[in-house]
Amino acid sequence: MHPRTQRILQRLEKLGSISDAPNCLSRFYGTTAHIQSRKVLIEWMESAGMTVHCDNIGNVRGILKSKAPNAKHLVVASHYDSVFDAGKYDGPLGVLLGIEIAQQVSESGQDLPFHLQVVAFADEEGGRFNTAYLGSGVLAGYFDKTWLSRKDDAGETLDSVIQKMGHHIDLVNDEAIPKEDWLGYYEVHIEQGPVLCDKDLPVCLVSGIAGQTRVDIHWKGMAGHAGTSPMDLRQDALCAAAELTLIIEALGKKHKEKLVATVGKMIVGPNSSNVIPGTVYHTLDIRSMQDHFLAEMVAYLEQQALTIAKKRGLHCEWKVMQSNPSVDCDPQLSAALEKGIKKSGVRELLSIPSGAGHDGVMISKVAPISMLFVRCTDGISHNPAEYCSPEDIEAALFASDAFLEALADSIK
Amino acid sequence: MHPRTQRILQRLEKLGSISDAPNCLSRFYGTTAHIQSRKVLIEWMESAGMTVHCDNIGNVRGILKSKAPNAKHLVVASHYDSVFDAGKYDGPLGVLLGIEIAQQVSESGQDLPFHLQVVAFADEEGGRFNTAYLGSGVLAGYFDKTWLSRKDDAGETLDSVIQKMGHHIDLVNDEAIPKEDWLGYYEVHIEQGPVLCDKDLPVCLVSGIAGQTRVDIHWKGMAGHAGTSPMDLRQDALCAAAELTLIIEALGKKHKEKLVATVGKMIVGPNSSNVIPGTVYHTLDIRSMQDHFLAEMVAYLEQQALTIAKKRGLHCEWKVMQSNPSVDCDPQLSAALEKGIKKSGVRELLSIPSGAGHDGVMISKVAPISMLFVRCTDGISHNPAEYCSPEDIEAALFASDAFLEALADSIK
Repeated sequence: MHPRTQRILQRLEKLGSISDAPNCLSRFYGTTAHIQSRKVLIEWMESAGMTVHCDNIGNVRGILKSKAPNAKHLVVASHYDSVFDAGKYDGPLGVLLGIEIAQQVSESGQDLPFHLQVVAFADEEGGRFNTAYLGSGVLAGYFDKTWLSRKDDAGETLDSVIQKMGHHIDLVNDEAIPKEDWLGYYEVHIEQGPVLCDKDLPVCLVSGIAGQTRVDIHWKGMAGHAGTSPMDLRQDALCAAAELTLIIEALGKKHKEKLVATVGKMIVGPNSSNVIPGTVYHTLDIRSMQDHFLAEMVAYLEQQALTIAKKRGLHCEWKVMQSNPSVDCDPQLSAALEKGIKKSGVRELLSIPSGAGHDGVMISKVAPISMLFVRCTDGISHNPAEYCSPEDIEAALFASDAFLEALADSIK
Repeated sequence: MHPRTQRILQRLEKLGSISDAPNCLSRFYGTTAHIQSRKVLIEWMESAGMTVHCDNIGNVRGILKSKAPNAKHLVVASHYDSVFDAGKYDGPLGVLLGIEIAQQVSESGQDLPFHLQVVAFADEEGGRFNTAYLGSGVLAGYFDKTWLSRKDDAGETLDSVIQKMGHHIDLVNDEAIPKEDWLGYYEVHIEQGPVLCDKDLPVCLVSGIAGQTRVDIHWKGMAGHAGTSPMDLRQDALCAAAELTLIIEALGKKHKEKLVATVGKMIVGPNSSNVIPGTVYHTLDIRSMQDHFLAEMVAYLEQQALTIAKKRGLHCEWKVMQSNPSVDCDPQLSAALEKGIKKSGVRELLSIPSGAGHDGVMISKVAPISMLFVRCTDGISHNPAEYCSPEDIEAALFASDAFLEALADSIK
């Protein structure tokens, strides 16, 4: 194993040990562990030869400036916050690979034709304030001020946490890299899915990030006594929700090549074994790379929900909570990445869409993006069992080195 | 309206105002409101001419002793505890009617050929300790000592509450009426269902109490990322539960003349919109007057659950938590009640099974039972909207007077 790979592994262990929870990994935005991990990241970036600062949302940003006139920024990034009971690769792997390729550039004394900016985003998961992409949003110039009043489970506001971290809210909007200054964005991330395991490949290109629509569905029927209400006089909200859940699953299976659809959350009221459910709230999470098709499928499911409601004499409220279009990775960046993957000796080139969302969704609003997926065992993530082998991490490192080289060549 | 009916209405209002909750009716076992309502009941029973005592579980018991040698006990009873956010008729109506018919006997100086014992059971709903039929269980000699260690939501044990009420746990087992001393049991209760409204009748006979089986069902699949897990590689516990829920509903509808089947409670894990459900727990409540048929249907549903589990690659645990056989009302008592209903001028005789459980389930272990249902608007109960009209209450009162008379005649 190369000493650089070893250093990445050591750093993954180190970051993985900085947690707010005693028995598992948890690093939410603005907590003690979060702030502590930031210090460590600053140290590592500085020792890699970068000029480092922590911006006013908490992103750690290391820069290797180019001497080229009118040089633009290539941002290599991922996030350093985590979900609760997390694995240690989701986020940190991309940050540490970024630091490692920067250190190689710095130590070689090479002057790239672009500024290389390695960024560790402060909040991507949004676990504390439900503020996914908070860090990358700030870098792209999309900071939503209404989020400042959001509260965590303990009732503390985002506003208050940002100030306690020592940041100036008034300056957050100045942290963005202006659109015209971007060369592009590159992120290495674990796949969080089973395809690379299935194909027995260490890494692959990401073709894009799936569009995602999230819907809240509220059913209102009539609660009643489970022993005395005849079957044909019921308005059972749970049976209606069950019917829609199976229609959603069947639709996903029918279009399994281009769609995933999930009912992940369901809350039944009054939720008592001897009372007919009067209310049910549940979610729909539906994703596809094809925006038009996705919109069609969402409309179809809404129609199905209304049909069920009518048939059963219930009320159904259909509330689209979030709708992100799909994002394509940039052909030119991807061509350089393809060269990098080939050069690093990976047996086969593969390009797959990402069903999971990533910071690139935000960055794509202002800059071309590219991503490299790394195999993680059984596709498991958001789980302490999350695992990447040293060999696969090394493959990702060499591919990233070669990507940087190919990109520099293409610009010179 | 007869002054006796008026007195019942006033007392319903009075009892309905004694609550532990500030904005709704709630009278759980052993609470301040529960103990306060007991005092009021003792007062009313005494003023009706009965000898009254409160037994060691908290049942309020008023007796009009018969002078007949070897006289047995006719118990006329219902309960004075309530669910949370209750209506004021469920329980108290039967107790107050009992007091009223006893007062008439007492004031007339009549010597019945049986002891008339009016009982207000301390706990039928079991809302605090999940101890349904606690009061009637003690009267029938079926007190489950293992219940003493059960805790309420605040962590207080049943044992401690009984002692705080001033009762002696060692003496609880002595409170039972021995099997050989029972003449029978009679209870007036609101229907809690829609049949009397549908037939436009004030009261009817109860033919029996349905058998009830309660099952806890635990599904264990595999949680996963809603964006990255292909549809055909999922083990979605909620989709399995939804499938079974609809099979349960379909079975109930197919046999709607003799079965009700309900999934009332469902809890999904981890219950997050972007995570495939890995676990689901839900209940099955299934009831029928036909015990053999009920057992067959439960077995059929278990088979269906296992088939779903196998098909979907999930684990399913099927745990029967409770299984009460159906109870038939006694033909002789019912014959006397039939006479009573006829004599009181009700247009049509109707006899229906009770889908809801009642204290008679416990008492039937030692004595013949009979019940009279009173119409409640739209079948609504366990709800502040629960309502019985004064006219229907009066019909129940007169039918109960006449039942007592017919029963006395049949014994003399």
